[in-house]
Amino acid sequence: MDMDRVYIENIEDGQKVVSYYMIKQAAIKTASNNTKFMDFTLMDKTGEINAKLWDCPEDAETYIEGKVIKIAGSVSIFKGALQLKINKLRLSSEEDNIVSMDYVKTAPLESEDMYQFLMNKIDEMADEDIKKITKAIYEDHKEQLLYFPAAMKNHHAIMGGLLYHVKRMLEMAEKMTEVYPVIRKDYLFCGVLLHDIAKIYEMDANEFGLVKDYTPEGHLLGHIIQGIKLVERYSEKLDVDEEKSMLVQHMILSHHSEPEYGSPKRPMIIEAEMLHFVDNIDARVYDMSEALSDVAPGEFSDRIWTMENRKLYQSES
Amino acid sequence: MDMDRVYIENIEDGQKVVSYYMIKQAAIKTASNNTKFMDFTLMDKTGEINAKLWDCPEDAETYIEGKVIKIAGSVSIFKGALQLKINKLRLSSEEDNIVSMDYVKTAPLESEDMYQFLMNKIDEMADEDIKKITKAIYEDHKEQLLYFPAAMKNHHAIMGGLLYHVKRMLEMAEKMTEVYPVIRKDYLFCGVLLHDIAKIYEMDANEFGLVKDYTPEGHLLGHIIQGIKLVERYSEKLDVDEEKSMLVQHMILSHHSEPEYGSPKRPMIIEAEMLHFVDNIDARVYDMSEALSDVAPGEFSDRIWTMENRKLYQSES
Amino acid sequence: MDMDRVYIENIEDGQKVVSYYMIKQAAIKTASNNTKFMDFTLMDKTGEINAKLWDCPEDAETYIEGKVIKIAGSVSIFKGALQLKINKLRLSSEEDNIVSMDYVKTAPLESEDMYQFLMNKIDEMADEDIKKITKAIYEDHKEQLLYFPAAMKNHHAIMGGLLYHVKRMLEMAEKMTEVYPVIRKDYLFCGVLLHDIAKIYEMDANEFGLVKDYTPEGHLLGHIIQGIKLVERYSEKLDVDEEKSMLVQHMILSHHSEPEYGSPKRPMIIEAEMLHFVDNIDARVYDMSEALSDVAPGEFSDRIWTMENRKLYQSES
Amino acid sequence: MDMDRVYIENIEDGQKVVSYYMIKQAAIKTASNNTKFMDFTLMDKTGEINAKLWDCPEDAETYIEGKVIKIAGSVSIFKGALQLKINKLRLSSEEDNIVSMDYVKTAPLESEDMYQFLMNKIDEMADEDIKKITKAIYEDHKEQLLYFPAAMKNHHAIMGGLLYHVKRMLEMAEKMTEVYPVIRKDYLFCGVLLHDIAKIYEMDANEFGLVKDYTPEGHLLGHIIQGIKLVERYSEKLDVDEEKSMLVQHMILSHHSEPEYGSPKRPMIIEAEMLHFVDNIDARVYDMSEALSDVAPGEFSDRIWTMENRKLYQSES
Amino acid sequence: MDMDRVYIENIEDGQKVVSYYMIKQAAIKTASNNTKFMDFTLMDKTGEINAKLWDCPEDAETYIEGKVIKIAGSVSIFKGALQLKINKLRLSSEEDNIVSMDYVKTAPLESEDMYQFLMNKIDEMADEDIKKITKAIYEDHKEQLLYFPAAMKNHHAIMGGLLYHVKRMLEMAEKMTEVYPVIRKDYLFCGVLLHDIAKIYEMDANEFGLVKDYTPEGHLLGHIIQGIKLVERYSEKLDVDEEKSMLVQHMILSHHSEPEYGSPKRPMIIEAEMLHFVDNIDARVYDMSEALSDVAPGEFSDRIWTMENRKLYQSES
Amino acid sequence: MDMDRVYIENIEDGQKVVSYYMIKQAAIKTASNNTKFMDFTLMDKTGEINAKLWDCPEDAETYIEGKVIKIAGSVSIFKGALQLKINKLRLSSEEDNIVSMDYVKTAPLESEDMYQFLMNKIDEMADEDIKKITKAIYEDHKEQLLYFPAAMKNHHAIMGGLLYHVKRMLEMAEKMTEVYPVIRKDYLFCGVLLHDIAKIYEMDANEFGLVKDYTPEGHLLGHIIQGIKLVERYSEKLDVDEEKSMLVQHMILSHHSEPEYGSPKRPMIIEAEMLHFVDNIDARVYDMSEALSDVAPGEFSDRIWTMENRKLYQSES
Repeated sequence: MDMDRVYIENIEDGQKVVSYYMIKQAAIKTASNNTKFMDFTLMDKTGEINAKLWDCPEDAETYIEGKVIKIAGSVSIFKGALQLKINKLRLSSEEDNIVSMDYVKTAPLESEDMYQFLMNKIDEMADEDIKKITKAIYEDHKEQLLYFPAAMKNHHAIMGGLLYHVKRMLEMAEKMTEVYPVIRKDYLFCGVLLHDIAKIYEMDANEFGLVKDYTPEGHLLGHIIQGIKLVERYSEKLDVDEEKSMLVQHMILSHHSEPEYGSPKRPMIIEAEMLHFVDNIDARVYDMSEALSDVAPGEFSDRIWTMENRKLYQSES
Repeated sequence: MDMDRVYIENIEDGQKVVSYYMIKQAAIKTASNNTKFMDFTLMDKTGEINAKLWDCPEDAETYIEGKVIKIAGSVSIFKGALQLKINKLRLSSEEDNIVSMDYVKTAPLESEDMYQFLMNKIDEMADEDIKKITKAIYEDHKEQLLYFPAAMKNHHAIMGGLLYHVKRMLEMAEKMTEVYPVIRKDYLFCGVLLHDIAKIYEMDANEFGLVKDYTPEGHLLGHIIQGIKLVERYSEKLDVDEEKSMLVQHMILSHHSEPEYGSPKRPMIIEAEMLHFVDNIDARVYDMSEALSDVAPGEFSDRIWTMENRKLYQSES
Repeated sequence: MDMDRVYIENIEDGQKVVSYYMIKQAAIKTASNNTKFMDFTLMDKTGEINAKLWDCPEDAETYIEGKVIKIAGSVSIFKGALQLKINKLRLSSEEDNIVSMDYVKTAPLESEDMYQFLMNKIDEMADEDIKKITKAIYEDHKEQLLYFPAAMKNHHAIMGGLLYHVKRMLEMAEKMTEVYPVIRKDYLFCGVLLHDIAKIYEMDANEFGLVKDYTPEGHLLGHIIQGIKLVERYSEKLDVDEEKSMLVQHMILSHHSEPEYGSPKRPMIIEAEMLHFVDNIDARVYDMSEALSDVAPGEFSDRIWTMENRKLYQSES
Repeated sequence: MDMDRVYIENIEDGQKVVSYYMIKQAAIKTASNNTKFMDFTLMDKTGEINAKLWDCPEDAETYIEGKVIKIAGSVSIFKGALQLKINKLRLSSEEDNIVSMDYVKTAPLESEDMYQFLMNKIDEMADEDIKKITKAIYEDHKEQLLYFPAAMKNHHAIMGGLLYHVKRMLEMAEKMTEVYPVIRKDYLFCGVLLHDIAKIYEMDANEFGLVKDYTPEGHLLGHIIQGIKLVERYSEKLDVDEEKSMLVQHMILSHHSEPEYGSPKRPMIIEAEMLHFVDNIDARVYDMSEALSDVAPGEFSDRIWTMENRKLYQSES
Repeated sequence: MDMDRVYIENIEDGQKVVSYYMIKQAAIKTASNNTKFMDFTLMDKTGEINAKLWDCPEDAETYIEGKVIKIAGSVSIFKGALQLKINKLRLSSEEDNIVSMDYVKTAPLESEDMYQFLMNKIDEMADEDIKKITKAIYEDHKEQLLYFPAAMKNHHAIMGGLLYHVKRMLEMAEKMTEVYPVIRKDYLFCGVLLHDIAKIYEMDANEFGLVKDYTPEGHLLGHIIQGIKLVERYSEKLDVDEEKSMLVQHMILSHHSEPEYGSPKRPMIIEAEMLHFVDNIDARVYDMSEALSDVAPGEFSDRIWTMENRKLYQSES
Repeated sequence: MDMDRVYIENIEDGQKVVSYYMIKQAAIKTASNNTKFMDFTLMDKTGEINAKLWDCPEDAETYIEGKVIKIAGSVSIFKGALQLKINKLRLSSEEDNIVSMDYVKTAPLESEDMYQFLMNKIDEMADEDIKKITKAIYEDHKEQLLYFPAAMKNHHAIMGGLLYHVKRMLEMAEKMTEVYPVIRKDYLFCGVLLHDIAKIYEMDANEFGLVKDYTPEGHLLGHIIQGIKLVERYSEKLDVDEEKSMLVQHMILSHHSEPEYGSPKRPMIIEAEMLHFVDNIDARVYDMSEALSDVAPGEFSDRIWTMENRKLYQSES
């Protein structure tokens, strides 16, 4: 089957391509000569590419988001980016033996394994109140956790990205409590596990972890406020100690650390401050690794908007 | 009885004073010559003054916050501010016929009247969901509303100040909907009535509207978050339409308008934006009137820290 | 005649269009194949659209700004925006019975009526100095006031927009003085009426309220400074009390409230502060209504640059 | 007479002082023991010192601002600053042969000479419009120019400081036009001569260049706006070319360069930009020289608030 | 000996004290009644206190910084802070068996042990270039490292504070490389070990880790620039690979991460970014622990200027 | 030969062009129809233009950066900018008598003359330490100084631009020391001569002063740090007085004046502050002259991003 596969990350200017891809976005448009054409974003687990089908087929409506198609076409550069001109296409059928997962960017670890890892950590918690609220929320959201990304764009915007983000943060948090015993492990762990849990309500994602948009409540309130409401609701239901619930809510509220990033209160307990650090560290390691992934030794990356427009250096030694 | 009363706003350098005042703060301290003395903040409805009692009496512990005392003393200037040296003092007794209200700064309108005014406005609401949640919250918090101030310091930091603030905002809001019909009256009114309601949980105030401090939850979450949780709880209890509850929560969340002032989300509906304006207008009229209250025509006030350090001008014409 | 009219707001991708439009901008350009073509911005009272005429006609120079033309063409999407390809065009003639006003965005009220409304308010002023200077300026600038917009882009950038902006502000200001008697009505009214008067000198607008550009003095000094000079000149001529003139000038100077928005002095009298609020409220109501005008219930607008990049929500309920 | 003089800059902790000083400020106050005392700021041309007279004399009202007095007293340190305790004092009389100028900080050049220097530069101007407006304004304000300081505090807050500031700027401006011929000398000179001229109307200064306060118009409009109005008035009277007057006004308007420093428009002509530079250079040389005047080699000054809180270094080599 | 010792942290208002303290600062001053007195800052390992000796003794000059004295006196509150009035004092003598270390705040670990810990880590480095430069610098600065603090005020301003800061950072860095293998351990360790090394040249500290002031070069260049020059010098001497030296210099240059905090370049390699994080984490844990050390459960600390003025919460649970 | 030359600044839309240009950048690309084409940036001493050669020739690889070519083609506007469609091209040959300098933007003065001018100024220095270090650095870098630009883009990005920038600054600095004798001439001159010297190491420029990119060290450390290291190295080698070397390094470090512009320390000696001013003045005169060079009288330039987005005015008078 690999005969019929060209990974998007390997596509080059001038190449002829015959391969399968998943449709990320599809639209029917009108060209300046008044003819219809199709405009696609195609994806596989290695990347994305824009594609055009200049003769709009009669069954255009069947080529929709989430479908895997087989195409034949050729590649050129348009405004500095690669573009795929499709000559032939069809939907994949059962005989093609397509594994959807091959076409989706996913976290490097199995979601089920990551989930179990986190549940084990929860089981080790000493504080019963903190344990029961964390556990209940993780049990009730297992289904979404298995595929949710941690973001719409930027870091961890991949299937299972939310779990992966939380897992690495938790490992970091555990090390941190070894070096600094003043940090209370249960609080920090709980903060790590729940700080982004309401992303599940903030974003509208499909089973492949692709986010179509924010939900209305996500826009109007945001995952920080939604997370606080979630904790409040479970606290009442499970009769959690009021101060403990308040501190968990405070950790969620303050985990972006600065008002301009969405936290109206700054961290006022040491675990909230450390939660902010491990969150930032994990996002930064992820983003920097990504940005440097295709930079040659001795060269710099492009300017990175989300890192104050700096360039990164791939060192030679 | 006025023989025995000198309003604090009338006290002058060099004056001999015999009068009644309420104790706002009291502390026993040690002077540099190792003797004990008492340090007071005294108040009446016209202002506050620092006072010292250099010979600490045996019954020092009976002079506590909220008590009205009779004193005799003399006034001098210490570091630019008036200070009262107490020569004699005693607690007021029944025969003194003290009316506590004379010693407390209060809103210029009766709390009960303001409350009724607001309840009438609620009764006129057309949207049943919005009406029922607003009404329930106002009914359940009537007791505190009758005395709560709108702030610890700054604008409306007086007994009944919260109701007074809301009432004037509501009058302004009503006018605004007359000029701009695009603004939905029920939403704006609801926003006005509930935007600061959780100040009741944010601050720890006594029956005279004096705020001792913020509550822990007030510090760690703040009245904006507390208000959202309150609305969420009542919405569930009263089965309010989800979108409506979400919009009310959004108005509360965004009413400070900017992240650096505590609103992680900016107003996204027109009523939220207008709520922000009427809130600011009322606070500004209050603060500017206060600041100019003792400035002579043709003169400027001192620099005002909370208004970007500007001075205000008392015009002559 | 409506047979020959397609409102720009109704134009869709793929549509054939035969209609009249006013030319907002016209230019003759050379294509990459070295042929000449015409590039238009066409407008009617519902919006604007870009249009191309690929074969440059011999009478190209007759198609100029402000002319109404009849065109036949077809619509496609180019870089995300609708574009009209013109196949045929001619200037409108007398027989077409064109009413220029149909092609221009105008305020929803008659300019003459708004002007009279404002003159009546001026006549009711109690302070003779303030009345005479305001009245003289309004009488001397009546001609321009009847068509001037309030801005080049953004809020009230429509024919009669300046009067409309002032009228709604004045209504709001009147209500405000009812709620807050401490605000002196004559000063606030005068501030409202004159705060933007020098836009007439800042911008170069034609009889339809279309602004071609800022004037050199508009660029180099700006309407705030120009307004102060105007008030100074009339004050001398009409022998206005010096302090009153100074306060009117101060209101103009400070009405943008913050240095970075053009006011080197912040409001130092309460009327100047309130002028700033009613100015902002009116602009915000206008802009928010515009931004939401074509957003479906339950949906969000695009990000709005002039409102700190936020999106607005069209609520369902 | 030097027997009876101790320069303030030479006064030390513990010293007995018999000397003449000018009263800069005087006030009668009440001590905590209810007795009256006098609180002075005394000055001579080398500095200022706080002084107390604990027994308030009967003729206290005769010791007022601007008077030169003879005192005997002793010096101690109070809260980190030197303080003079006065034991005896009297007003100076004719026999004392007091020269007021000895008690006032003045520019190092004669005011009349500086004024003539500037008038000569004006006479050399080639552009008749610019020459006539600059000359008229300098002739009409000669009296105030001879004593006005350039500021209330900070740089050039000395008698004749405004002329001194302008003269040094003009010398710098002349050099600048030699290096950069693209800069038009007449415009730059005019900008230098008039940029701060309205400080005369902004501040209320006495004949010794001591500023008591800003004037109301100074507060409400500021010398930049006042300067523009002044130029406008003279332009009309002298029939100056409109564009030239506009450019002079623009130079005044933009000479602080940034909105947050009072210029709502940034410099848009090269002479306006250069005016800003020579203004800043002269102020900075003055302030840095002052700040380093009593710092020993190898030492740093205190932090300087007006220079972004930096310290300055007195180098050894 | 404990009979003669009252730890400063235990001193209370009104107490009689007989104890030994180290002189941190001493000055002879003149009181307002013209008599001399001595003003001290006294310290022990638990804190500092201001002290006055009203009768200046003949041997005043012998009471200098770094000496341990025995005093008898009494305590009162002056302007909100405890003050010690000394009645009797003498220098400690040999018979007092004073251990200087008891009077100095020191890191909780032995300096020699921390130094060995770090040298062992250096020995484990795989990259020979990085190992040799780090080792040489640590060997050549061992003497100062054993007592140097990490700051003049703020975090780790204690004897041995620099080593303590580096050691905890190194432990954290090691954990970090376990979680994130993409981080190169040698670079990160080298960055940790050398990032603040030039504090030794930036500050002028005595053998007890007390910093008198910054050095001139410390003021004019700062430890970041000084550190780069140090690495450059050792790189040349030891013939270190150019790119490696450049990267070490870059880590030092960028470790404050933002220009306004002293790093003109932001981190461009992942190890530089992580260095910034572990530096901040260690400082924050230190400062937060300090700030909360005397706050009761359920209470908040004072506002903390260096943490954006926030208060910290001592939780009850 | 001028028959075959069309200066780029004179090229117009629609023109046929036959001329020689230097290749600034060249690339082979694939069009959407899968054919190869060449994409050029061509330059002469008057400007730059984009050019396309749609039929990629067999000898495409010979058309490289720095070569002068003869072309025939035609001009059109593409996305608002002129574009040259090449019909024929060939490399220039000896017979064409090409003078490379005609195709490169250069400073208006001869590099050798400017260099001599500066060396003469160095020879006049009184301070032997400062003279020897400045002289040695200028002698050792003469070769690069003769062609290096002062920037990659922006001001003085021309061949010899660095020398031209330094020369004009030095003239200005000399005048400045005449007006303000407090400024030490040797320090200021040294600062001017060395402030940007390490641009030679920061940027990778060819013999025509064209900068391809920053060097890795330029990116990671920047010319300010590189300059300090250069001075440090020469100081050691030449045995320069330590304080003097430190001050020269401080001038380099602080010459951008503000942290956000790359100076972690602000100027702390007067010469450092003045260095910042003359640097800014020269850059600003250069940029403003450039920006206004093709603006008609009475018109404004486009918005200029590097000058806070302002427009400049070309005055009529």
